[in-house]
Amino acid sequence: MPEVIRIPFEHMEREFSRVLGSIGFEPDAMDRCARLFAENTLDGVYTHGVNRFPRFVQYVKDGYIRVNAKPEKKHRAGSIEQWDGCLGPGPLNALFATERAMDLSKECGIGCVALCNTNHWMRGGHYGWMAAKDGFVFIGWTNTTSNMPAWGAVDSRLGNNPLVLGVPFKDEAIVLDMAMSQFSYGSVELHQLRSMPLPMPGGYNKDGVLTTNAAEILDSKRLLPMGYWKGSGLALLLDLLATILSGGLSTAQISQQKAEFGVSQVFIAFDISQLGNNRALEESINGIIRDLHASVPAGDAQKILYPGERVLRTRSENLKHGIPVDKSIWEDIQRL
Amino acid sequence: MPEVIRIPFEHMEREFSRVLGSIGFEPDAMDRCARLFAENTLDGVYTHGVNRFPRFVQYVKDGYIRVNAKPEKKHRAGSIEQWDGCLGPGPLNALFATERAMDLSKECGIGCVALCNTNHWMRGGHYGWMAAKDGFVFIGWTNTTSNMPAWGAVDSRLGNNPLVLGVPFKDEAIVLDMAMSQFSYGSVELHQLRSMPLPMPGGYNKDGVLTTNAAEILDSKRLLPMGYWKGSGLALLLDLLATILSGGLSTAQISQQKAEFGVSQVFIAFDISQLGNNRALEESINGIIRDLHASVPAGDAQKILYPGERVLRTRSENLKHGIPVDKSIWEDIQRL
Repeated sequence: MPEVIRIPFEHMEREFSRVLGSIGFEPDAMDRCARLFAENTLDGVYTHGVNRFPRFVQYVKDGYIRVNAKPEKKHRAGSIEQWDGCLGPGPLNALFATERAMDLSKECGIGCVALCNTNHWMRGGHYGWMAAKDGFVFIGWTNTTSNMPAWGAVDSRLGNNPLVLGVPFKDEAIVLDMAMSQFSYGSVELHQLRSMPLPMPGGYNKDGVLTTNAAEILDSKRLLPMGYWKGSGLALLLDLLATILSGGLSTAQISQQKAEFGVSQVFIAFDISQLGNNRALEESINGIIRDLHASVPAGDAQKILYPGERVLRTRSENLKHGIPVDKSIWEDIQRL
Repeated sequence: MPEVIRIPFEHMEREFSRVLGSIGFEPDAMDRCARLFAENTLDGVYTHGVNRFPRFVQYVKDGYIRVNAKPEKKHRAGSIEQWDGCLGPGPLNALFATERAMDLSKECGIGCVALCNTNHWMRGGHYGWMAAKDGFVFIGWTNTTSNMPAWGAVDSRLGNNPLVLGVPFKDEAIVLDMAMSQFSYGSVELHQLRSMPLPMPGGYNKDGVLTTNAAEILDSKRLLPMGYWKGSGLALLLDLLATILSGGLSTAQISQQKAEFGVSQVFIAFDISQLGNNRALEESINGIIRDLHASVPAGDAQKILYPGERVLRTRSENLKHGIPVDKSIWEDIQRL
């Protein structure tokens, strides 16, 4: 087991800022990007926070991410806008697109920003939390480079194309953030790092047998789509929609490149304050969650939680005690 | 094994029309509804076509479905309209909502119709095919009465809330139509009817063990969410979104009633002809499908197909040879 240390949130944010400043980020972009990486980590999404930070920095150094590029509007058709991410930092482009979708929805009821030529947005749930905490319903997704075989296939031709849905709830949010693979690559890597088996089969070994062994799955590169044919079909459709709406690259086209850059993303906000029934809304949402919480847990399962509920606990614990980080990863970052 | 007979499409459509006329449908509504049931069956979705028709008729007789009710507009906020389905026939309300969403999208880029107080739409894919064949990108979903436990729970408090995504493709469409359970109740019932095991575990038996035995799952009522926690989370979010956007009943509220009626649905159309890049669109879509088709099948798997590809073959075979129907079901319908 790697040694884990705890880093205070502000300390982590400052360290990220220092590194981003050193590789050419302008001050404002540097702070927004550092804050996003620190917040993702604070919320317990280590795979798309601190653990991914060194790779993000390497992508900048390799020239795949243009640190100070700003998104440019290409086209508008009513409530949809198409923007070119100009290969800027994925998290900054995604923050911009989420804000723009919210603004558009104030004007049009729904606002959709389709973004081409952007980069990995890190944790998709970040944008769901952001919009939902501001009172909007949010739907967003991204395509990725190919990293998962279609159901019934051996070779990876689908992205795991994470999908995010967010809903406002009691000054916080209910946010689902899920990749189309049963486990994200980040999660499989984390299980390998910790030498832990996956809780359910997450892919095939080289002999074509379903396995919970993370190392064997990373070796065969045969990640299992969630729900077998269902996750496979949804991954394909999300790629089609992202490509069509943004006019950007598809998973097949991204996979022709030597690295994952220039992906396509969609951000949809609904301004529910304009709906006809918004007084009853809060009670409707509360009723759904009350009913879920009344579920009888199976066997030794815990109380049934809504997506995002555990995040609130993790956030509060990590604020109090510091954020747990593998010591070697933190040392790598300090050397950047 | 039940005896299977083959009924020509027009014959089936006429028989459905006769029955619907006899229970009070006005001529135009009768023909549209009969055609939809016949087309769902023609496309091989027997569970939401001919096999479900007697139950639909019973719901009308029980007063849950008001045969000649028409949807009424409640509210508009830019590209979203909220409509009251007035407990009319689900398929007719859904056809109307799909058409209205397409019209709205011509005006606003995106059109969203959120429908409360409607009824089971039968095969959700029908509306995806309809919009996509007309050149629109489509996203739609419905909530249902509770029929699936949340992940980790014993008692059913989630609906299986089918989600539909459709994209135009070569005068036809790519359409994904999936319930949030690993198998729809219709499919589990069909396997039980044919005494066939499910191809993958689809739920738990009474001892809490995952099983492929359809009868045991129907007995325990513990349907498995697709992708375990992922399908569970997505089902919850789709219910939240349908309820919020339509102002209608949630799964928890529908489940308080003595039958499944008054559900909430969302229909979103994107008018992609207004996008800035639509000349390159066709080649993008073709490229994605070409890449999928190039997948290497695992073991003895067949060529990898896109969602909806098999439907085209089934449709053409059933048009040629007649639609296969369990003889006893057909006899029941003839007696209606």
